[in-house]
Amino acid sequence: MTDPDRTAAGSPTRMASEIAEQPAAARRTIEHLVPEQPRLRELAGGRRRVLLVARGSSDNAAIYGRYLLEVAAGVPAALAAPSVATHYRARLDLSDTVVVSVSQSGATAEIVETQEWARECGAATVAVTNVAGSPLAEAADVALVTQAGPEVAVPATKTYLAQLVALAVLADALGARPSLARDLERVPDAVAGLLDADVSAAAEALAGADRVVVSGRGLLLGTALETALKMEETCLRPVRGYSYADLRHGPISVVSEGLLAVLVGSAHGPLAEPMADLVRDLQGRGARVLGIGGTTTFAGLCDLHIAGPDLPETVEPLASIVPSQMMIEQMARRLALDPDNPRGLNKVTQTDTAR
Amino acid sequence: MTDPDRTAAGSPTRMASEIAEQPAAARRTIEHLVPEQPRLRELAGGRRRVLLVARGSSDNAAIYGRYLLEVAAGVPAALAAPSVATHYRARLDLSDTVVVSVSQSGATAEIVETQEWARECGAATVAVTNVAGSPLAEAADVALVTQAGPEVAVPATKTYLAQLVALAVLADALGARPSLARDLERVPDAVAGLLDADVSAAAEALAGADRVVVSGRGLLLGTALETALKMEETCLRPVRGYSYADLRHGPISVVSEGLLAVLVGSAHGPLAEPMADLVRDLQGRGARVLGIGGTTTFAGLCDLHIAGPDLPETVEPLASIVPSQMMIEQMARRLALDPDNPRGLNKVTQTDTAR
Repeated sequence: MTDPDRTAAGSPTRMASEIAEQPAAARRTIEHLVPEQPRLRELAGGRRRVLLVARGSSDNAAIYGRYLLEVAAGVPAALAAPSVATHYRARLDLSDTVVVSVSQSGATAEIVETQEWARECGAATVAVTNVAGSPLAEAADVALVTQAGPEVAVPATKTYLAQLVALAVLADALGARPSLARDLERVPDAVAGLLDADVSAAAEALAGADRVVVSGRGLLLGTALETALKMEETCLRPVRGYSYADLRHGPISVVSEGLLAVLVGSAHGPLAEPMADLVRDLQGRGARVLGIGGTTTFAGLCDLHIAGPDLPETVEPLASIVPSQMMIEQMARRLALDPDNPRGLNKVTQTDTAR
Repeated sequence: MTDPDRTAAGSPTRMASEIAEQPAAARRTIEHLVPEQPRLRELAGGRRRVLLVARGSSDNAAIYGRYLLEVAAGVPAALAAPSVATHYRARLDLSDTVVVSVSQSGATAEIVETQEWARECGAATVAVTNVAGSPLAEAADVALVTQAGPEVAVPATKTYLAQLVALAVLADALGARPSLARDLERVPDAVAGLLDADVSAAAEALAGADRVVVSGRGLLLGTALETALKMEETCLRPVRGYSYADLRHGPISVVSEGLLAVLVGSAHGPLAEPMADLVRDLQGRGARVLGIGGTTTFAGLCDLHIAGPDLPETVEPLASIVPSQMMIEQMARRLALDPDNPRGLNKVTQTDTAR
């Protein structure tokens, strides 16, 4: 494992330390949660769909969960709109639904309240949280408590990765033919293998870029959106995350010279090849492209490239986020910011007082 | 009705003419689609949820449809991820689902293909399109053909508003206690009443702004996202649309001096008051706020304000988009752009060749 990056004072940032702890966090979480699969199957018995409830980084984890449930487990899944619960107090029949609420702290009032609403609407409830005994965990039918350990830096890193592990364990439990267990076991080593990468050129390009957008698609969409959000929160720069398709549908018209596009590619699966077309399109409009992962064709086209993990697409997002975290931590320090404590953020974020 | 804005050559832009045609487009669409409600009820009989399929402006219309279905009709609703159909070819059981596909042209291959996939998965299918006889309309169980008439300008205006009408008719048909008919009848006059507003100060502020974000929430979220997308497509400036809650959860940390925030408020409903808190928060961080609609408290706080319609929140979005369209049309001309034909966009947008 690489020596974590150090601050000017010589000690590593907490964010760098927590990034480096991820192989162990993933391993502990897999070992702790796989034994919960029979309880999850029992809870879901006869229910036909999954509704995910989350905000911020947890929402990006939920987007991965949604694709994985539909693509790998064959279970219809969607993201809830919390205000339907917290403000409109809509009465929906959710007796055919498993509601999965994702919150690092398990204490965000909006998420706790939405889970309670879901139960009143007849849903079975699963909490994904890093804090045992939190209000979210206590009120759920099944609590999947991730084993990332305490996270001190404000930007979520190891707790985000542990959420992805929990959602993969959940999807595998709910699918008709569980198939992810062996691939999941490969994740901790794959993450460890990425920690030595040299991301300094990428961090330098990002720190010097005028405008940055991030894009990905399908199972990797959540990784792209989390990369954009993390860069905003940590480096205090506006960064836009787009799905590949939404970007091509219209906003690509604003791409021009001076834009740096970060593309998160997949090495496998049906979306791997189209991502190379997007590189050519963006470059043709004057943008530079920084690629993470993807096929060899994709890597060869990018202006800058960081290797991704060698994992099947279904569990690739559990490792593909790691190079992003590393380059963002370095980018923040290049901008003379403290990655551990960006301005204006608390570790437990409240949207507003629900009424 | 106001004299439509004119180009330098003296003739009105097509976009301005099409904005002004919206009261008639809304009236025709209401008259044409309300008689379809019994067929919609019959088609939906016994099915428990709605899945919406769309991209771009149609996706913003679908976001309104989703909130309205849950809040006003009590029907669980969600947005589909088209790549789950077109690329992953997931096999989901959608026999409990009505799939509603929204496309102005009815010819976007990705949407047509996703509708076909949904039928194979057991869904009942409804198409919302402005083109009778289009592939989407021909293949649907029920086609709700909007009556906006031909739209020549690239930015969708009257076809977007007509899509919202269609989704309100659909939600009212599927609810246990239909309640929107009388409010829907008030929409054409409410739209007409907004066409005389002076939006020149707003257009000037937008054209001169360094950075622009747009935010709204709940039933008005789609209006905010459509305002942002339309400004990007028409004025070729990067503009970010956020839900109120997502903005507060993290990206608000990048708000600073020089930012112009466009907030779309509601005059009624449980989300009307929190929007005033957001104005104060943004101003405290140095941003200027341009408000559309909302409560009198909200209007009084904004640095610039344009009146919204006097309609209940459930149908407010059908008119709240109109001031945005008007100010964007003027903003484009101030930037010496032709609003009818922004660079790089075709009227039928294809994401990529689905495989």
